[in-house]
Amino acid sequence: MLKLADARRIIAAAEKKAIEIGQPMNIAVVDEGANLLSHIRMDNAWIGSIDVSINKAFTSRAFNISTKELAENSQPGDQFYGIHASNQDRVMIFAGGIPLKNKHGVVIGAIGVSGGAGHQDHAVAEAGASAYTS
Amino acid sequence: MLKLADARRIIAAAEKKAIEIGQPMNIAVVDEGANLLSHIRMDNAWIGSIDVSINKAFTSRAFNISTKELAENSQPGDQFYGIHASNQDRVMIFAGGIPLKNKHGVVIGAIGVSGGAGHQDHAVAEAGASAYTS
Amino acid sequence: MLKLADARRIIAAAEKKAIEIGQPMNIAVVDEGANLLSHIRMDNAWIGSIDVSINKAFTSRAFNISTKELAENSQPGDQFYGIHASNQDRVMIFAGGIPLKNKHGVVIGAIGVSGGAGHQDHAVAEAGASAYTS
Amino acid sequence: MLKLADARRIIAAAEKKAIEIGQPMNIAVVDEGANLLSHIRMDNAWIGSIDVSINKAFTSRAFNISTKELAENSQPGDQFYGIHASNQDRVMIFAGGIPLKNKHGVVIGAIGVSGGAGHQDHAVAEAGASAYTS
Repeated sequence: MLKLADARRIIAAAEKKAIEIGQPMNIAVVDEGANLLSHIRMDNAWIGSIDVSINKAFTSRAFNISTKELAENSQPGDQFYGIHASNQDRVMIFAGGIPLKNKHGVVIGAIGVSGGAGHQDHAVAEAGASAYTS
Repeated sequence: MLKLADARRIIAAAEKKAIEIGQPMNIAVVDEGANLLSHIRMDNAWIGSIDVSINKAFTSRAFNISTKELAENSQPGDQFYGIHASNQDRVMIFAGGIPLKNKHGVVIGAIGVSGGAGHQDHAVAEAGASAYTS
Repeated sequence: MLKLADARRIIAAAEKKAIEIGQPMNIAVVDEGANLLSHIRMDNAWIGSIDVSINKAFTSRAFNISTKELAENSQPGDQFYGIHASNQDRVMIFAGGIPLKNKHGVVIGAIGVSGGAGHQDHAVAEAGASAYTS
Repeated sequence: MLKLADARRIIAAAEKKAIEIGQPMNIAVVDEGANLLSHIRMDNAWIGSIDVSINKAFTSRAFNISTKELAENSQPGDQFYGIHASNQDRVMIFAGGIPLKNKHGVVIGAIGVSGGAGHQDHAVAEAGASAYTS
């Protein structure tokens, strides 16, 4: 079970990466039930990304997939196009959400990052996720 | 009129198929009024698919069409593009919802399945639907 | 962790009680994350109780309390009055929701029942909950 | 202007108080714009209190008042009765939210706490608020 101490370690690693690349971010971690454990908004990060970061984390746990991968299947004409209208509009279909897995490969939560370009959000989320799985 | 006993038989048939193909699913059945009769989430099925399965069933009864067919008419440029924003975001436009018909061909409910690839969801929904119409 | 087989056993026990008292019910079970595991609507049970049963289960897990007890603290002038406006209106403050506890007394889910008078809903929920803890 | 470092200091002080009184809490801090800066859910704190803590903080900044005081004016028959239905149900009218003021007495944010009895939530929020104003 993911604990607050884990969430803080994950967020700290993500925050470090965000500072490195010079892009202020919103960073959120949810637990196994897709419920919020912790969130931070770095100074000067977008207000609109509060909700996006939390919902990217929700999405990655809700479907056990990174939002970057989900995005590829959710474009017009693809098999999951329209999924963004489900779950009370909490499904985010662009990069920045990554599932957190335990050593058995079981998803036990997720991280969601929002505040920059898609590849930046994803990179910061990856930095956070590595802090847990390592 | 669809009864709870019918819904259970339909769900059991769908569940059997899901086990066969090795993909845990959320399975929902709605009645003539498009209102939920029963839902199950199989162990390890996605949390995000609870809502999706229920809403695929809603959609198939609401418009008397499979969500696979509706998807074809709801892409950008097509005649129903944008329909996923109606009905409080309960309209799902990707495969997995199928209307249930009585022996006179009248739609009396629907099944909705979510948890795998589109073709898997549709196949499991078909297995469930056959249990009723047969 | 609560499994679908547990949810079915809990629902079966609740359904048996509902039949005994002659009141058709909606019965829902959620897991540790307050996410729906299974739902049934008995024949002739109220349509409006679909949502209520699911949300009573949500509430009992969200706050680790029966909705009957929560009701007592949520009346005008009491310490939690107004809590029903939180959590996207999913907080139900009348009888019928009961937490499910494991043998260590830890809440690992909840049952929600709706379809009759408050004391009937609560009695049916208790019957369901006993099937798990026994 | 409230910064993330301030929010962390405020949350740490509140968390310390929550540990002292032995009640796990959700703790949230919003800035001048009533937008979330940071949130934590302590281990074993209620899931339903995630939303409540964030919205108590929102409410205290939105109306520059503690939610304990607002509660007194929002009961049936009182001058603000019904205010909890405004602002997309984000207005919480029970204790646990407190405005954060700078040395000039200007409100520059708020803290929201949820997870225990009303007086516990308020005491933990006060501990957090003092960490800023001192």
